[in-house]
Amino acid sequence: MEKKITVLPGDGIGPEVVAAAVRVLKVIGKRYNHDFQLGYAAIGGAAIDQFNNPLPDETIAMCEQSDAVLLGAVGGPKWDNNPAELRPELGLLKIRKTFDLFANLRPVKAFPSLLDSSPLKREVAENVDLMIVRELTGGIYFGEKKRDNEEASDLNIYTRREIERIVENAFELARLRRGKLCSVDKANVLETSRLWRQIVEEKKELYPDVVVEHNLVDSVAMKLITNPGHYDVVVTDNMFGDILSDEASVITGSLGVLPSASIRSDSFGLYEPVHGSAPEIAGQGIANPAATILSVAMMLQYSFGMKEEAAEIERAVNTVFEDGYFTADLVKDGGRALTTDEFTDKVIAEIDTSF
Amino acid sequence: MEKKITVLPGDGIGPEVVAAAVRVLKVIGKRYNHDFQLGYAAIGGAAIDQFNNPLPDETIAMCEQSDAVLLGAVGGPKWDNNPAELRPELGLLKIRKTFDLFANLRPVKAFPSLLDSSPLKREVAENVDLMIVRELTGGIYFGEKKRDNEEASDLNIYTRREIERIVENAFELARLRRGKLCSVDKANVLETSRLWRQIVEEKKELYPDVVVEHNLVDSVAMKLITNPGHYDVVVTDNMFGDILSDEASVITGSLGVLPSASIRSDSFGLYEPVHGSAPEIAGQGIANPAATILSVAMMLQYSFGMKEEAAEIERAVNTVFEDGYFTADLVKDGGRALTTDEFTDKVIAEIDTSF
Ligand SMILES: CC(C)[C@H](C(=O)O)[C@@H](O)C(=O)O
Ligand SMILES: CC(C)[C@H](C(=O)O)[C@@H](O)C(=O)O
Repeated sequence: MEKKITVLPGDGIGPEVVAAAVRVLKVIGKRYNHDFQLGYAAIGGAAIDQFNNPLPDETIAMCEQSDAVLLGAVGGPKWDNNPAELRPELGLLKIRKTFDLFANLRPVKAFPSLLDSSPLKREVAENVDLMIVRELTGGIYFGEKKRDNEEASDLNIYTRREIERIVENAFELARLRRGKLCSVDKANVLETSRLWRQIVEEKKELYPDVVVEHNLVDSVAMKLITNPGHYDVVVTDNMFGDILSDEASVITGSLGVLPSASIRSDSFGLYEPVHGSAPEIAGQGIANPAATILSVAMMLQYSFGMKEEAAEIERAVNTVFEDGYFTADLVKDGGRALTTDEFTDKVIAEIDTSF
Repeated sequence: MEKKITVLPGDGIGPEVVAAAVRVLKVIGKRYNHDFQLGYAAIGGAAIDQFNNPLPDETIAMCEQSDAVLLGAVGGPKWDNNPAELRPELGLLKIRKTFDLFANLRPVKAFPSLLDSSPLKREVAENVDLMIVRELTGGIYFGEKKRDNEEASDLNIYTRREIERIVENAFELARLRRGKLCSVDKANVLETSRLWRQIVEEKKELYPDVVVEHNLVDSVAMKLITNPGHYDVVVTDNMFGDILSDEASVITGSLGVLPSASIRSDSFGLYEPVHGSAPEIAGQGIANPAATILSVAMMLQYSFGMKEEAAEIERAVNTVFEDGYFTADLVKDGGRALTTDEFTDKVIAEIDTSF
């Protein structure tokens, strides 16, 4: 297959982890005979520096011509005091909205070899295998905003259609996984939550094979820690999803290895590691590229339908961990930390020799 | 001293834990020569059953005549399908708003003898001693709400004055503790958060002895698990506070022992355990009364200025735990679970013999 991919390295460790993931992508292309055509463009702080715009028109144009987008990370102290319209994160919010990437998929799965790094007891974290589905282009993020010196407000607003499409998406995912869906809201307080809950109830008629539960956001914030193994697919709105997906990202000790996908109804999508730009270690060649490599796997699966290729990457990364190779963020006492390139070499070697 | 206290047993285990805490309160009254005058009134499901109103006028009137309110818990499956205006939680939201109880204080402190029950590794949870200060009468909970079949919205709105008073409250508390304040917002997205952050910056000039940091809500949701010992006082808005305080409540394994206070600028306040009404164990006499007993301690301290009395209750509860006595929710393998009454007897015995 021929696929066009826009690569947005971004800031901090973004360029390093993206370079590593691109190496893996090229090996997969060669092995499976795909023609991955890469174009590079700017986003975030790097784009502000170069174009005075966190999401330049050139970048949008290139993404429009592509089948998928691979993003590193945006942000850093250099731009922290910029005015709102020149903040790196705005590039992220704008690319989501411009391309209508309404579904943010955040899988969290325990790697047995990483559980020592988890803040949770092994028996609590070891069976975790969940997917948070966060609505990404609506809600309080994009509702009307006002501020003067005396008062400020943000409108949390959802249309039926916005809720329906994310809920359908979550049901479809649950069906492909263990068939359990937890819808998270604050229906005892918010009207948006009541509409949300009503729509989940309507949709569940169409998915009799999926077991649905409704749970309040405060209660889920607890249970994600006390019993994370309970969850399969979790669907929620933009703001709750922001909080809960980050909370969930630390329970298995594998924040540095978590990928994400931001997709829409067709196959186009944006893929990025969950971790941020980590400016404190940027440029040293020591960042963990696993999350970005696994984001490439999600791209292969969700945008290109290449299930076998995706599984091969996941298998390779997992084997490297099982063999005891880690970057500095995950290395165990007495072990040697691999550099970004060394870790990537191991993953590639694993792919090369595996068939 | 003479103090009038309205007691609102509420639903589920509420009446049982409140009865236990009242026993402790009476012992303290006798020992320290205070005249605690108690009046009982209805709230929540119990009030719906009796008066068709989750917060009857009689209850409001009695609270108005009191110096403080002690609440058990509200809610249960019996009322889960009631219309919005006949939901037990509404009693809670209304009493907060009616009495302008804008500051919700939620201390979370690790008891060494309870850490086995924590989902976190001992070394992560053992130094936790934090206080979440949640704004309780504003924000998206009380802003304008709309809903029809096609669209729903909730307005998140804060005035300068609403933010100022909760922020001042948090600074004062930080000053009395370890002098650290973490203000939590989502200033990269929300205008309410930007006003919030600006006001924290203004106020910090008046508290040069307090070290302030700003942190994003998603980031705090992670760090509360990976490094909860980092926090001293955490101040945030109503919605973020709801989520983060519940998340924080499970990190030390002591959800069943966490108290809370909802206060305003004068000394009046409402005190209640953090745990809910636990209908599944109601009426069996096995509920853990520690959280409600410790809520009485907060009442003595914050509403009545009785520091010594409050400390005495905390010491007694801690000693009972140290001596290895637990109710069913916390009992260790092989240990015998105390009933609500037996546990309360132990606490009272500890107070009786201690001076
Ligand atoms: C950078 C920020 C605007 C963004 C968000 O809140 O969506 C980030 O936290 C994320 O989750 O991708
Ligand atoms: C019952 C509910 C309305 C309430 C809230 O969200 O404030 C509860 O969760 C709490 O935290 O006291």
